[in-house]
Amino acid sequence: MADCIFCKIGAHQIQAMVVYEDNEILAFRDINPQAPVHILVIPKKHYDSINEFCDTDAQLLGRLVVAGTKIARQEKLAERGYRLVLNTGVDGGQSVAHVHLHLMGGRSMHWPPG
Amino acid sequence: MADCIFCKIGAHQIQAMVVYEDNEILAFRDINPQAPVHILVIPKKHYDSINEFCDTDAQLLGRLVVAGTKIARQEKLAERGYRLVLNTGVDGGQSVAHVHLHLMGGRSMHWPPG
Repeated sequence: MADCIFCKIGAHQIQAMVVYEDNEILAFRDINPQAPVHILVIPKKHYDSINEFCDTDAQLLGRLVVAGTKIARQEKLAERGYRLVLNTGVDGGQSVAHVHLHLMGGRSMHWPPG
Repeated sequence: MADCIFCKIGAHQIQAMVVYEDNEILAFRDINPQAPVHILVIPKKHYDSINEFCDTDAQLLGRLVVAGTKIARQEKLAERGYRLVLNTGVDGGQSVAHVHLHLMGGRSMHWPPG
């Protein structure tokens, strides 16, 4: 998507504080962090939202979550814990129309989750 | 796991308000809802947390998220939007040591997510 900021970050056309990368996935620090650790994990391929996925391409969504667990270990969050959040649409608070998983930790996360 | 309440719900040994079921996954309404729609999506197989998953079994985690999108459509949330949350460990606010995905919607979700 030519005008998608997360596609551009995924293609290294816009700079970001990258903390993880593989063939399909890139992760970088949120520029407006809501916790001591706040990282966005994105598929490099463009999907407007998780509504576009089905069981046959669920593997990539699962790898997105597994990447979140890997980064949590990198960031020394695995033992104390962390929260993963996927916002979809207006009610969900989705601010960029490119699937992104929020990884948040380094503090006790409250309930409800927003 | 003999004493895991979510294993028992997954095996229909404890009653719950089930909204979705397939071979691997069951979803039911949270008994302490934090939004007009608040549903828990669980794998029937026991995993203490998402830290136990790796890329080779990522498919099931992905199917858990895809099930969340299916249920969101069932609950008429897909258009207005919704939030999916995975809590891990104490800081994440994980209250039951069996992987469960929170699906929340029916209201505008706030930021930060807890």
